[in-house]
Amino acid sequence: MAAETGAAGRPAENMETKNEQEEQIVTPWDVAAEKGGKIDYDKLIDKFGCQRLDHSLIDRVARLTGRPPHVFLRRGVFFAHRDFSDVLDAYERGEKFYLYTGRGPSSEALHLGHLVPFMFTKYLQDAFKVPLVIQLTDDEKCMWKNLTVEESQRLARENAKDIIACGFDVSRTFIFSDFDYVGGSFYKNMVKIAKCVTYNKVVGIFGFSGEDHIGKVSFPPVQAAPSFPSSFPHLFSGKDSLRCLIPCAIDQDPYFRMTRDVAPRLGYHKPALIESSFFPALQGETGKMSASDPNSAIYVTDSAKDIKNKINRYAFSGGQDSVENHRKFGANLEVDIPVKYLGFFLEDDNELEHIRTEYGSGRMLTGEVKKRLTEVLTELVERHRRARAAVTDEMVDAFMAVRPLPNMFS
Amino acid sequence: MAAETGAAGRPAENMETKNEQEEQIVTPWDVAAEKGGKIDYDKLIDKFGCQRLDHSLIDRVARLTGRPPHVFLRRGVFFAHRDFSDVLDAYERGEKFYLYTGRGPSSEALHLGHLVPFMFTKYLQDAFKVPLVIQLTDDEKCMWKNLTVEESQRLARENAKDIIACGFDVSRTFIFSDFDYVGGSFYKNMVKIAKCVTYNKVVGIFGFSGEDHIGKVSFPPVQAAPSFPSSFPHLFSGKDSLRCLIPCAIDQDPYFRMTRDVAPRLGYHKPALIESSFFPALQGETGKMSASDPNSAIYVTDSAKDIKNKINRYAFSGGQDSVENHRKFGANLEVDIPVKYLGFFLEDDNELEHIRTEYGSGRMLTGEVKKRLTEVLTELVERHRRARAAVTDEMVDAFMAVRPLPNMFS
Repeated sequence: MAAETGAAGRPAENMETKNEQEEQIVTPWDVAAEKGGKIDYDKLIDKFGCQRLDHSLIDRVARLTGRPPHVFLRRGVFFAHRDFSDVLDAYERGEKFYLYTGRGPSSEALHLGHLVPFMFTKYLQDAFKVPLVIQLTDDEKCMWKNLTVEESQRLARENAKDIIACGFDVSRTFIFSDFDYVGGSFYKNMVKIAKCVTYNKVVGIFGFSGEDHIGKVSFPPVQAAPSFPSSFPHLFSGKDSLRCLIPCAIDQDPYFRMTRDVAPRLGYHKPALIESSFFPALQGETGKMSASDPNSAIYVTDSAKDIKNKINRYAFSGGQDSVENHRKFGANLEVDIPVKYLGFFLEDDNELEHIRTEYGSGRMLTGEVKKRLTEVLTELVERHRRARAAVTDEMVDAFMAVRPLPNMFS
Repeated sequence: MAAETGAAGRPAENMETKNEQEEQIVTPWDVAAEKGGKIDYDKLIDKFGCQRLDHSLIDRVARLTGRPPHVFLRRGVFFAHRDFSDVLDAYERGEKFYLYTGRGPSSEALHLGHLVPFMFTKYLQDAFKVPLVIQLTDDEKCMWKNLTVEESQRLARENAKDIIACGFDVSRTFIFSDFDYVGGSFYKNMVKIAKCVTYNKVVGIFGFSGEDHIGKVSFPPVQAAPSFPSSFPHLFSGKDSLRCLIPCAIDQDPYFRMTRDVAPRLGYHKPALIESSFFPALQGETGKMSASDPNSAIYVTDSAKDIKNKINRYAFSGGQDSVENHRKFGANLEVDIPVKYLGFFLEDDNELEHIRTEYGSGRMLTGEVKKRLTEVLTELVERHRRARAAVTDEMVDAFMAVRPLPNMFS
């Protein structure tokens, strides 16, 4: 299956696919399907106790925001939620909310999967006109990936440039690194949260062992704290009842299940979640996207030639093994990575439907689909690269400055 | 036995004496002698692996500082150490060090046992002319004593006034509350320390259980971090090889055993320790000093009348049950609390020796010793009260300001 999380991205590089898994496992550090198959998202919804994001909710988003639902909503990339309807109810009554997402800065370059939550969060910010906090968990990566403090901080700042390149509104967005920002009100919330969670509880949620270092045990409150508005007094002073909506990949759900348990005891709303599936590796949904194999993913630093080569050589095809068979049986869209990737990044619903029909029936060949995907991704990556090149150090400083946001709720 | 720690003071109110203990237990939260006896400090030195503070070291302190050794050194109140001789070696070579002590602000008023480490630390600061950092672990007390953040912070500031009243030099002293100061370089050190310590390790050291909240597991790096100079960039920037000396009660040793394990891996000197025995309760060394029993201790807020009453009514006497027997057998100095207290606070060695001889032989009666103790403690408490009344909010702000210390190493 597709082991790499895109959304929330934080633990991406730690994930390993265990194909021999008896039962599927989804934690922030391990994603493994049952016996080499695909992740069963319905089962995951049942197990985690979240809700399916159904069409009526998506229609409601469109109606409330006066714009068409994002492609990630239309295509089911974001497929589950917790209390998202409550956030919309409140929004309809005139109550704003804030968005919270994050990234664990463990690598220099982001890949497409890493962009997914940020592209979606930007849409939510634009559509609802709400403030956004983005946590860069350099402390987590320093502890899990054994990076030095300095290297984690450097990666956090590099990653911030890629995040800013996604087009966030600086007048509504606060990006922070834990090493910079932990302290004061944020630390007070960490302590309050930690008081409410036993060691047995975190073992139950995250599966830590006695040989894990205590930094791992200490970290969940760090990721939980931004769910409470009082962690950001420079933004939300006196707004303790402000709701928080967290767009993330579903592997981050354990953190926020813990947070939601704690919230009422501290007098806050439970944070709401809108959760995505995982972004598949080029080698297919049963393969794995791995930091140690650059050919398992397309990076925002890849050249047009890299992209073309990776797609042609590595993108797992659902097409048949000969043109004759392909014309006769058509492609298996269920396992075809080019079609899956187009599902994420080709905006035109009609064109996507056309490709699915033609390719599925065998009238269109793998090469044609890969060519179209190459165009789409090259354009996306080129656009990202131009945007990133335009991000100056002053812009990073502005996004990361601890100051009121001038345009927060308007 | 006397359950209350004086030195480091932090966990004072949590301690319970368990008289039915099979084996003595000394942790930052539990102090219990074997089967209702007294703490066996020799055994403790063996178990913890620290060293006895012998006469040659005390003589060396006197020689190096050019002043007589403090009464707490002469009388064996501070009786154990780790690497104190290394600190003196370095000092003799012209290398300075810094002092680190602390308090867990769990109560409004301090008792005499709480003053012990601060009185001793002031002597060290004056004698060696070195900077001092004092940690107020309001976060710890918030978590262990279930105080609110606000109440812990208020107590921290109140306690800071009592600490300042001990006479510290503001030009060499930085007092900080964790809720205020955790963050930045300090948080980075917390993370670095946490990475080096497994959960099994902290369970082995501190005895946490799975039902303890994760705040407890997260806390040891908070108490460890001030042992490294880089936690205080406004004081010790560029001085990563500065040594740290920690005066504390021996129940705090587990924190610093952990810290000393970690130090070389992070490129720092192991902090040196100078460790005290526990300050006994009025009811005797087998009784307990308890926050819930104000008659178990003398507080710095007690009036002269309170002090007199407490000593006369509650101070456990080693005198005999009748004047005849007393004259005949003399007092048992081993269990006599007035004599023990005089050992802490009567500065005149000759007078103390005189009392011990006369009282031990039965020529002096309990009432006379208690009267002398009442005088000594009344004067001490009155002096403290006057000093504390003179501590203004501006002075507290000055001690707690994050700024370079003007007179650090001179």
